[in-house]
Amino acid sequence: MIQLDPIAALATAPGIGAIAVIRVSGQDAISITNRFFRGRDLTRQASHTAHFGTLRNRPDASGEETIIDEVLVTIFRAPRSFTKEDVVEISCHGSEFIIQQILRRLTEEGVRLARPGEFTQRAFLNGQFDLVQAEAVADLIASDSDASHRAALTQLRGGFSRQLKTLRQQLIDFVALVELELDFGEEDVEFAHRDQLRQLMLDIRRVLHPLIESFSTGNAIKNGVPTVIVGKPNAGKSTLLNALLNEEKAIVSDIPGTTRDVIEDELFIDGIRFRLIDTAGLRQATDTIEAIGIERTQQKMRDASLVIYLFDGLNIAPTDLRDAVAEVRTSGKPYLLIGNKLDAIDAGRKEELEGIASEPIVWISAARHTHLDELKAALSARVRTDAAVQTGSAVVTNARHYEHLTGTDNALARAITGLDTGVTPDWLAMDLRVALQHLGELTGEITTDDLLDSIFSKFCIGK
Amino acid sequence: MIQLDPIAALATAPGIGAIAVIRVSGQDAISITNRFFRGRDLTRQASHTAHFGTLRNRPDASGEETIIDEVLVTIFRAPRSFTKEDVVEISCHGSEFIIQQILRRLTEEGVRLARPGEFTQRAFLNGQFDLVQAEAVADLIASDSDASHRAALTQLRGGFSRQLKTLRQQLIDFVALVELELDFGEEDVEFAHRDQLRQLMLDIRRVLHPLIESFSTGNAIKNGVPTVIVGKPNAGKSTLLNALLNEEKAIVSDIPGTTRDVIEDELFIDGIRFRLIDTAGLRQATDTIEAIGIERTQQKMRDASLVIYLFDGLNIAPTDLRDAVAEVRTSGKPYLLIGNKLDAIDAGRKEELEGIASEPIVWISAARHTHLDELKAALSARVRTDAAVQTGSAVVTNARHYEHLTGTDNALARAITGLDTGVTPDWLAMDLRVALQHLGELTGEITTDDLLDSIFSKFCIGK
Repeated sequence: MIQLDPIAALATAPGIGAIAVIRVSGQDAISITNRFFRGRDLTRQASHTAHFGTLRNRPDASGEETIIDEVLVTIFRAPRSFTKEDVVEISCHGSEFIIQQILRRLTEEGVRLARPGEFTQRAFLNGQFDLVQAEAVADLIASDSDASHRAALTQLRGGFSRQLKTLRQQLIDFVALVELELDFGEEDVEFAHRDQLRQLMLDIRRVLHPLIESFSTGNAIKNGVPTVIVGKPNAGKSTLLNALLNEEKAIVSDIPGTTRDVIEDELFIDGIRFRLIDTAGLRQATDTIEAIGIERTQQKMRDASLVIYLFDGLNIAPTDLRDAVAEVRTSGKPYLLIGNKLDAIDAGRKEELEGIASEPIVWISAARHTHLDELKAALSARVRTDAAVQTGSAVVTNARHYEHLTGTDNALARAITGLDTGVTPDWLAMDLRVALQHLGELTGEITTDDLLDSIFSKFCIGK
Repeated sequence: MIQLDPIAALATAPGIGAIAVIRVSGQDAISITNRFFRGRDLTRQASHTAHFGTLRNRPDASGEETIIDEVLVTIFRAPRSFTKEDVVEISCHGSEFIIQQILRRLTEEGVRLARPGEFTQRAFLNGQFDLVQAEAVADLIASDSDASHRAALTQLRGGFSRQLKTLRQQLIDFVALVELELDFGEEDVEFAHRDQLRQLMLDIRRVLHPLIESFSTGNAIKNGVPTVIVGKPNAGKSTLLNALLNEEKAIVSDIPGTTRDVIEDELFIDGIRFRLIDTAGLRQATDTIEAIGIERTQQKMRDASLVIYLFDGLNIAPTDLRDAVAEVRTSGKPYLLIGNKLDAIDAGRKEELEGIASEPIVWISAARHTHLDELKAALSARVRTDAAVQTGSAVVTNARHYEHLTGTDNALARAITGLDTGVTPDWLAMDLRVALQHLGELTGEITTDDLLDSIFSKFCIGK
């Protein structure tokens, strides 16, 4: 295992807490810390043990070492640590002042302050996990809903990358054979069994497709689903919004970290975050359904991933409903038709409007808070384009992964077409090499320093 | 050791970090955590060891346990822990979502969320340290300057309470003898040797006095020294302020936690925080030195602990300087006279003004940034009313401690006067009991639940 130069950073959140943890990793991390730790000799302690003691300043003129803090130091010996290097975790009192004093003291002893993501980068470089897993660490920390947490954790624990790595290895073996054929030039030999190669490529694509398809879901999981509610004034929009939010607010408030500042209002359904976007503008601009045509609302619909069209089941004119459905449909966005005031209409009216819409309508009574569960189930179902969210199987949430997955898939598609049309081995080898390049970059088996720097710089310091 | 019901809380600062630490303490803390930890059997591991594994949700309908997070769990067996109870520290990924999931999971297993300060309260109740030390934990976390950090750490490590405890025990022995005399009623016996008692009381007061005197310093250390700069317009006030702050800003910015929002500007000298308070109001109200008489500036001077009177050594009229010195002196605050434009005046002028002021003047040139070190040394010296700050000896920073120290001192003073005037043993015993009560409450040897609740409720959660 390579042990790089020792680095240190605050690993816990900044600010005031009872304790804070400073992480030190690299060559001599333990013996360096031991130089200003008073307690047991850390260099003689077993891995994964915690030791109480004090950290000391450099001796002053009179030889006295003043105390920086009483701390608990846990040591991890390479390779049994997060970075696979020697690691020391210093648990000190959670004061900014003390944290700075300890970091300063470490730098006096030759330890460098870590760059963002540098601990995880070392873990990756030492083979603790692949690139997809490393990126999942950052996602995991940022996760703020059940679904995004589950997606990140699945990836951290191997996710799709393990499966792809096996298939990539098999593909590498075939490519070697195809390239061997090239060495024989005009002799027209076939070392690589074409049917087996074809089957392998089909197998790989079978793994890729659900992953590629999961990206829109994955994106929604990670960033929330921008959901615009449109409808005529008096359709009951505000009542619906309040009904949905009032019910959910208690749940949301269980999670103190959930920031609600930037987006207008958010709602968690089945662990998926829906970002509800206001279309009050619609109301001020005009009171007819044609207001959907107004630029401002159209912009909001363009930005949204999901459109809720709410209408007043009691009072809407059948022609207005027909126009609205047509309008919403042309937006090209996934949408839900929600009929309000179910309590005030009879079965005949309901049937009439469903006939006009010629598609399913979710009926609710916003004012009476009835049938909101059906609405929520419909919202959730509209987002879950595949079963990955529920089964805990891998979901692609990262644009870089999506790019390489589609890149692999396209190259394999070309290679299969090439096989079918009987292209020469050199053409085949080229497509296969492109596929391998994408697969390798995905999991980090092929990397450049620039790529790594760019990935890890997005991390928080201390990770 | 008493093990109370298990409690849990986030011990690190809230917000996003690479990791977060959740602390669990109390009866069965280890076996409870072990119920949903997958890795080694925690109940069979030695104290002070760290174990990697996963925390699991309750099994779902199909019996599957989904993963909450990959964690590192460190166990501490009673009494070798902060609270002297069984303690588990769970180091998880630093996401609010994960933290909430783990805390929720712990509560499912019967662990209660801790109240603020509850861990430290348990440490105190189990004799880990006395009340002064417990309170120092909170001060230590809040410390944001070298001096406040040192004061808190000295107290945490025993500080003055250990010394007082010994003296209190000796006093208790004497009180017992004096009370025995009361039992003999009219017989006029003396079990308690009066000279020795007198000497003990003098000894205790000798320990108390520097502590009582250190309170104003201690207060300054803890909260910063409100320092008002007054002077005529064009005295060079702003230039001085900028000169001081520009030099120091680099140092201040080394400490990211230092909030500079509320107070107008602050300056660290020798680890002491000076809160510089603007008196621009003076300038707008009038341009004569009599403006010091204006209510607004007087108010600022009243709020300040230290007054800097700055004058223009080149242009000030001798009578104005005399009036100003008289005015500042009547404020009753510690003050410094600072003469500006040292570079522009000759020795004769300097001498003349010093004669008028009839006290030392610190000479600087604000514009040329010269002799600022002398000014800083003078500021620092004016605050250090005793040597405690520099020697690291105990400094009283807590109003509760100050109250009990003066309470003890007053009672002892009365008892000594009583001895001298030959009061009856019952009067003497009463004063001694008051002194013992104050000493006992100071260190927590005498406590009430209300007192404890009030002290520990000021802590942050997780401590």
